This record gives sequence, structure tokens and C-alpha cells, in this order.
Amino acid sequence: MSEYLKSPLMGQMMRQPLLISSIIIHADRHFGDNQIVSRRVEGDIYRYTYRDCHRRARKLANALKTLGVKMGDRVATLAWNGYRHMEAYYGISGSGAVLHTINPRLHFELIAYIANHAEDAYLLFDACFLPIIQAIAPLTKTIKGYIVLCDRDQIPQDHKIPNLLCYEELLDASSDDYAWPLFDENSASSLCYTSGTTGNPKGALYSHRSTLLHSYASVMPDSLNVSGRDTVLPVVPMFHVNAWGLPYAVPLTGAKLVLPGAALDGKSLYELFEQEKVTFSAGVPTVWLGLLTYMAQNKLTFSTFKRTVIGGSACPPAMMKTLRNQYGIEVIHAWGMTEMSPLGTSGTLQNKHLLLPAEQQEAILQKQGHAIFGVDMKIVDDDGNALPWDGTTYGNLLVKGPWIIDAYFKDEGGDVLEDGWFPTGDVATIDHDGYMQITDRSKDVIKSGGEWIGTIDLENIAMAHPAVQIAACIGVVHPKWDERPLLLVVRKPDAEVTKEELLAFYEGKIAKWWTPDDVVFVEALPIGATGKLLKNKLREQFKDYILPTA
Amino acid sequence: MSEYLKSPLMGQMMRQPLLISSIIIHADRHFGDNQIVSRRVEGDIYRYTYRDCHRRARKLANALKTLGVKMGDRVATLAWNGYRHMEAYYGISGSGAVLHTINPRLHFELIAYIANHAEDAYLLFDACFLPIIQAIAPLTKTIKGYIVLCDRDQIPQDHKIPNLLCYEELLDASSDDYAWPLFDENSASSLCYTSGTTGNPKGALYSHRSTLLHSYASVMPDSLNVSGRDTVLPVVPMFHVNAWGLPYAVPLTGAKLVLPGAALDGKSLYELFEQEKVTFSAGVPTVWLGLLTYMAQNKLTFSTFKRTVIGGSACPPAMMKTLRNQYGIEVIHAWGMTEMSPLGTSGTLQNKHLLLPAEQQEAILQKQGHAIFGVDMKIVDDDGNALPWDGTTYGNLLVKGPWIIDAYFKDEGGDVLEDGWFPTGDVATIDHDGYMQITDRSKDVIKSGGEWIGTIDLENIAMAHPAVQIAACIGVVHPKWDERPLLLVVRKPDAEVTKEELLAFYEGKIAKWWTPDDVVFVEALPIGATGKLLKNKLREQFKDYILPTA
Repeated sequence: MSEYLKSPLMGQMMRQPLLISSIIIHADRHFGDNQIVSRRVEGDIYRYTYRDCHRRARKLANALKTLGVKMGDRVATLAWNGYRHMEAYYGISGSGAVLHTINPRLHFELIAYIANHAEDAYLLFDACFLPIIQAIAPLTKTIKGYIVLCDRDQIPQDHKIPNLLCYEELLDASSDDYAWPLFDENSASSLCYTSGTTGNPKGALYSHRSTLLHSYASVMPDSLNVSGRDTVLPVVPMFHVNAWGLPYAVPLTGAKLVLPGAALDGKSLYELFEQEKVTFSAGVPTVWLGLLTYMAQNKLTFSTFKRTVIGGSACPPAMMKTLRNQYGIEVIHAWGMTEMSPLGTSGTLQNKHLLLPAEQQEAILQKQGHAIFGVDMKIVDDDGNALPWDGTTYGNLLVKGPWIIDAYFKDEGGDVLEDGWFPTGDVATIDHDGYMQITDRSKDVIKSGGEWIGTIDLENIAMAHPAVQIAACIGVVHPKWDERPLLLVVRKPDAEVTKEELLAFYEGKIAKWWTPDDVVFVEALPIGATGKLLKNKLREQFKDYILPTA
Repeated sequence: MSEYLKSPLMGQMMRQPLLISSIIIHADRHFGDNQIVSRRVEGDIYRYTYRDCHRRARKLANALKTLGVKMGDRVATLAWNGYRHMEAYYGISGSGAVLHTINPRLHFELIAYIANHAEDAYLLFDACFLPIIQAIAPLTKTIKGYIVLCDRDQIPQDHKIPNLLCYEELLDASSDDYAWPLFDENSASSLCYTSGTTGNPKGALYSHRSTLLHSYASVMPDSLNVSGRDTVLPVVPMFHVNAWGLPYAVPLTGAKLVLPGAALDGKSLYELFEQEKVTFSAGVPTVWLGLLTYMAQNKLTFSTFKRTVIGGSACPPAMMKTLRNQYGIEVIHAWGMTEMSPLGTSGTLQNKHLLLPAEQQEAILQKQGHAIFGVDMKIVDDDGNALPWDGTTYGNLLVKGPWIIDAYFKDEGGDVLEDGWFPTGDVATIDHDGYMQITDRSKDVIKSGGEWIGTIDLENIAMAHPAVQIAACIGVVHPKWDERPLLLVVRKPDAEVTKEELLAFYEGKIAKWWTPDDVVFVEALPIGATGKLLKNKLREQFKDYILPTA
């Protein structure tokens, strides 16, 4: 371990705290006229500027002050990507309160649990989520008011929420004369609960410092590579790990920001991409699936869109290929977690790779990528011993860095670090050049005869088959090997493929003993609130399944 | 003014100090095999990797410990850009001592003054600088040893320095087993003296925090835009504001680094650019002048070089045009100061400019650029009142940000800030879109009849004339107008131009009363140790000049 020394000589540099308010101040002063374009929940397109956003965020800060919100108080949001949500990002955190973004796709009882656990003082919500508010209002204990993000005349008469406030009324009644306060940069800025597939959700409590450092790191050319020449459309929701930090990263570059609201279907997205000349986007694989299906059906191409970051779960290589070869879109594979703000790695090439054949370059880019400066990582065995970076040895992936949690909010789950490192719950390899590849979630790994079988490889191979829409692989009890792989497959509409054909498709692509023992065709697979496959549900559903090999 | 609040709730993120050692640790762990290529002072090319650099930096840290160097002690360097200087950057700062880079082009008495003021404990130097060491050794008071950056057998026998140590011997005798210490990120990391044209040099004392934040900011797409796919050759010396931060920024991206040593002539640079497939470089305008002259004489083109940052002083638009149109090199205009680590602004386009005609885009790119996130700026009149951002009103330029000094080392010059802002000594305009343009140094501005005349415009116009190699404009005493502009011109070899032709060349390009009152042709202009025109020398030389209009 390193020693911690006391310094006799300090640098003589300006000491100003790293605060979220500095981002919107910068955007206003230096890119004030640049645009934020939002598709509203109401359906129309709304345009304004960073300067407008800053002015309304100051009004919100004054409104919150009037409502009695104090430094450190949690203020929740239940909202799509839109300009009012941006104002909440800056108005709440900038004033020293804590922005608590809630995922509206969660079950209402879980939302109430989260709001109570966070002790939210207020909750801002899009009018379309009124049914959720009606369901949770009787269950929440600390919320003093529900602020609906619309005009007074857009609020339904029979809303039945006694403590309902109108956002636009609050802003109209508030002055834009507000000086963002200064405070310790380690102060809490925002709160995001992980959608744990087991147990209660746990909160990651970010700080202003962690958010600013993450913002600097995220715009770097080898991270998201955001420049002032981009038009950025975050498909990833602002309730999902702060839309991967884009609501902070984009304003600091002065890029044009396009927020898609609730309309995430292929047609709506495609039209917005074209109309606003989007150059860069970010989202989970399932979103691209919908968009690409729509485009294929209508024989469409993109005219300005040229780069996307895909994360949240591993992007199937087949989808990466389609995006790159058919639509000319550079795909950056990224990996991270709610507990990591979320960016950990991104997949870009290094100078020495530039002369490699395209096929070898693609193989590198299909990995989750190399650590972004600030993040360190290692793989360890079950006893915590570091494993070699050879691209084949896999182990538990641990990370550390200034935008990674050191504990969950209120210390839920106790001491989570292992010797200062955060255990990600992923199983991965790291190669000689520092590229990490997720083999599996540690809880999804199939333990067959004492050896591990990674399920992601098995799923990717299945999804490369032209008849397969989506596939999942789980371990099923086996009398001899403890567990063996079972493949669950959703076929493409009108496509045909048999179990035998699919199993034959694995030949030569993996070790023979990794081949699934059986295939079951299903109508759909269970997808969670953040677009991830819910494998625990599948394991529950197939827990008594008898494999033909058993 | 903003209030400073006390936070009741801290974020729950890992708290690790931002330290320079983390950069070389990252480069080793994640880009360990990537190359650093150096042209040695000895003349040959030396190749090794980030992993090698880290190992030898650890050896240096152990060697310094053995020599009794403690946290906060200053250790000086007098060296060209090379791998041993890189090791000094990390070995000295990483261990908690302060890297003090000295400009070898300064007069030896000034070097001795600086070393005494900094109270340097040791001084590392390239063997070619032995004559400087021989001159300063009798004058320095605190230096315990001079460490020559070469092998024992390369040291001249008759060096006459009693306390001379051999760098390679020290490293050979030291273990590479060294754990970088942890300490307050505000600790001093490095020290750089400004080459003040008047008065004694003053030191900017950087911290680990300021250096790390500057590093993140400098690699952003709208700053230097450094990626792992680049091969970077910093022409700007490592003794000149830390080579604009590239020795920190490049390793964190994993890019290949090429260090040119002492050979900065056109031929040597060109050969190194081609041989190592350099993609990106950085330097002052005078360096590009030498390189372009050599290339024009030999009818050469670049095969990989595609982007350069030019700063230090304003790049003449004619040079920018030649680089862009004739050689296909994207030129990024940057501006900063030793007191700013140094980056303040960079010139890149925004999304809304992409559809402008090329000519209008060029006009934007000729400005010094927009503030890099982290830096804020404003222009004020002599009473400190903020002036409008309209692109024409000019005033004193003030800046603030976490990598800008709040005082000089040892508080030389007293309280330098104005209400928390650092006065740059530049006069500038800022336009509606946040692009700043330096009109002049405030001390170079010509005060004619109560109005200001900026000299940079006058010089740029002269340098756009095909017969002009370089030009300078100064104010000369005038009985009626107080001061009037005098233009000093060095003609290109074998080129002819008369005073009348040059003055006619100004017609229609500026306000008539800005036109210089006279032209004097000279053989050369005085250039300072950092490549800047020494206008105070010119003013001294021409202080009794009688203008024909007087």
C-alpha cells in the first residue's frame, strides 16, 4: 500500500469547487444561443437555448427555496428526456439539493419504496405519469408536494392529488435572479437507484465532484467524443443513470441537444434524427433493434447520423455489423454501471491497431473497451488474487475511481468494497492491450462440472443466426454436471429454424462442451425496466425444466 | 456574490486525490506497450514504452529519496523534449517533490536567479547544456548536485563541476520497487517561471489537482483533441509551460509520443514527422515558419500529419492558410499563458457554423477561440466594468478557473487577482458566440490621440504581403498624437518591396488612421527565449526615432 504524506508546499492555483452549476453557467456564457430541442410529452417540438435553460433553472431554484427545500434535501423526478427535466437537473443539484431520478417503468410499489427510502421532499413528474402518482401518493411518507411538469390548463381536472403543484405556475411566480451557491464539491448532487434483480433497490449517491470529473472524462475522444459540432440525441433516458452523463457532458461542449421525450418507437426516433440532423446518439441495444426494424421495413437510410454509443448490455456483434456496414454508423461499445456514474470503459482503437485488417479491428471493437482515464480495473479469482491480462483468463471484475461509489446510500448492504475496489458482479477477460470483455454476470454464469460457461457468447452466436430475433441462455439443473446451458429463442416474424439447425450453428464457433443441451422457442423474453433481460425470471420459470440430456 | 453553504449530505463516491502519478500508472497498466520515441541529444533515435517510462520514473523516485529529496523540495530540469525528461516529469512530481523546468535559452544570470529563487535542491540537465551549468554553478546557492542526463562515458572529462552526478548511474543503483505516495491533491507539483519582459521572472506553482483537471480539459475534442489513434510530436518544449500539458495529456490517452530533442530545424523535424508517422503536433508560429520554409524549398508534402495546435503568440492568418490550403493541415488556434497551465481558449467551430461559407468559417478560426470548459473569461474597461461581447468592443481580458494561478510563487508581485479574476495583460474582443480575439498586449497597444490602436492586426496585414518574412509594429512618440505606429519589416530573401507599396497594401483593410506612419526595413527582429517578439527591445531601440509625420 502507498503511504499518505503531508505536504509542506501547496500549489498556488485558484481553488474553486467542482460544481454542477458551473456547467450551465458555462453553457449560458459561452454557448448561450445554442439549441436544446425537445419533443414534448404533449407531442409537439419545443425549441429554446442554453441561455433559456439557465434562466428557467434559476427560477426553479428560487421556487424550490420558496417551497422550503434545503441543501441536501432530495427532490425526485419521474420524467422523460425533455427541457423541463434538464432544468430540474440544474435547478435542483445547482441549488445544493439532491436530484433523485426515478425510473417510471418500475412497479409502483417499488417506486413508493424508493421515494420513501430516499425521503424525497418533492416529486416532479410528466403529466403522462399521473396514474403512477395516483398509485404511489397513498404510500409515500415524506413527499410534501407533487409538481406536474406542464401548464395549469394541461392538468386533468380529476387528478385526485391534494398536494399537486403546477411547474409552470411555480416558475412564473419565481424570479430568475439567483446566484448559484458555492459549497464543498463532495456534497451529494444526485441519487440513482439500481434496478436490482434481487432484493430492494439500492441508491448510488453521486457528488458534484464525481459528476464533474465524469463529465470531463466522458467527452474525451476515446470516451463519447462529444464536440461542439455534434447534435446529440440521448435515447438513453434521463432516469437511467443520468442518461449516461449526457445532460452534463453535452452543455459543456456547446453541442446542440435533442431530447426525444416519450416517443422512443422506431418511426418517431427516425423522424427526429432526420429533422434535427442528429450526428450522435446513445442507447441500449433494444432501442436500436426497434429503430433498425422500422428502417429496414421502410428501406430508409440516415443522412447525418454517424456515431453511436451502445451500452447498458452487450451489443450483439450482428447488430454492430448492421449499423456499421449497412448504415455507415460508427459504433462505440461502452460499459459501465449505475454505481460507476456510469462510464467505465469504451471501445476505440489505438494507434498500433490502425494497420490491422478490418476483421481484427472489428474483433477489438466488439469488446467492451479499455478503461477511461480515471477508472482502473482488474480481474480476480474467488480468493481475490489478480489474474493475468491475456484475453482468455476470466475472473471477477473489480473497479475503482473517483466516479465510483464507495458505499450505497445510507450504507445499504454495508461495506461493499473489497480492499478499496468495487466488485462489479461481472465476469470478464482483459487482454494484453487493456481491452476488457464481459463474459457474463457472475450470477448468470453456468457452472458445469466445476467449470464456468459464459452465457453472453452463447447468446451472441444464436443472435447471429438470420432467423433469430433475440436469445437468452440460462443454466438449468443437471444431475451429472450440476448445471447445463438451455437456450431460449424468439424467432423473427415469419422466420423458421429448428432446434437441430440452431445447435448445428454452434459447431466450430465454441468449445463443444459449451453447446447448449436444449433449445426452447418462446414468444417473448422478459425485459426489465432498464431494457435488460431478466434472467432470474427465466431461471424461475425454467427451474423444473428437464433437459433431454438429464 | 454567491454564498458558501455547508452541506449536510456528502456524496458516497470514492475519494481519491487527483495525482500526477495516476497518469503514468494508467499509461503503464492500460497502454503499457505503446511507444515513446525520442530523438536523443546524442543524435540517435531511442524507443521504449510507457511501461519502461514508468519503471524508470520509479527508479528515479528511489534515487531522489536516496539523495535526500523530500516532499515539496524543488528539483530543476534544463532539458530538451526526451524520454529522460518524461521520467523527470513523473519521478519528481509523482514522489511529491516539485518539478521545476527551466528555459535554457535564458541568459545564464537569469537562470541562476531563478534557481536561487526556487531554492532548487538538484538540477537535471542534458549534456549539451554543460556550458550553462559551468556558468551558473558559482552563482547558485541551494543546489546540492547537478545530474547529467546521460551515461557515465558520455560525460566530458573536464566538466569542472564538483558535485556532478550521472543520471544513468543513479538509476542503475536504484530499485524500481516504489509505491507512489498519496497526498493532498492541492500539493505543489511543478513550477514554471514566466519570461517576463520587464522585472524579474515570477513563478507559477501548479498543483496536482490543477494539472489533472487541465489534462482532462486539454484532450477534449474542442481543445487539443488527442486520441489513442494519434501520434503526437510536441515541438513546444517541455521547459515551456510543460509543453502545453502534452507530457500529461498524451500518456492518459495511450497515443504514441514522439519527442524531437534539440533538433528543431525544418529538416530534422520534417524527417521525424514522416518517419514516425506523426498525426498531431503543437508549437509556436516561428517553428512552423522554419518547417514550412524547408518544405517549400524542397517541394515536400506530409503523408500522415493532419492537425496542429498553434499558440504562444497569434498565428499569422497567412501561415494558417498555407498550412490548411497547401498542406491540408487543420490548424487549431489556441491561447493561454504560463499562469494558466497554459490552456485558456481554442478555436474550433460549433454546430451552427457548419453550413457557413468557408470564408466565414476561416474568419472564426482565426480568432483565439472559445473558453475551454473550466476557464471563464471577461473583458473589462480600465475601471473594471464588464464590456459587451459584440466582437468589436475591446478591453482588458480577465480569466478564472481551477488551473489558473491565484498568486505567484512566494507571493511575488503581491495580490495579483482583481476581484477573483486573473488579469492577463492582453487586450481582446469577445464576440456573441464566445470567440475571443487578442487585439494586443496591453503594454503594446499604441495610444494615438486618446484612442487605442492594436498592433497585431497591423502586423498580420504586413505579413500577408508576399515579400514580407516577419513584421512588428510599435508605438513611437509623436508630438501631436502622443504615439503613432511604426512598422518594422524583415523582407524575405531576394524579395523587394518599398515603404510606399507596403503602406498602400493597408488601404481598405483597416481604418485609415490606423495606417503606420512609417516603415523601417531591418535585418532581423529580436526574438525572446520562448519565441516571442521582444517589443520592449524594439521600443528601446527606436525611442528617439523621428517619424516623417512628426
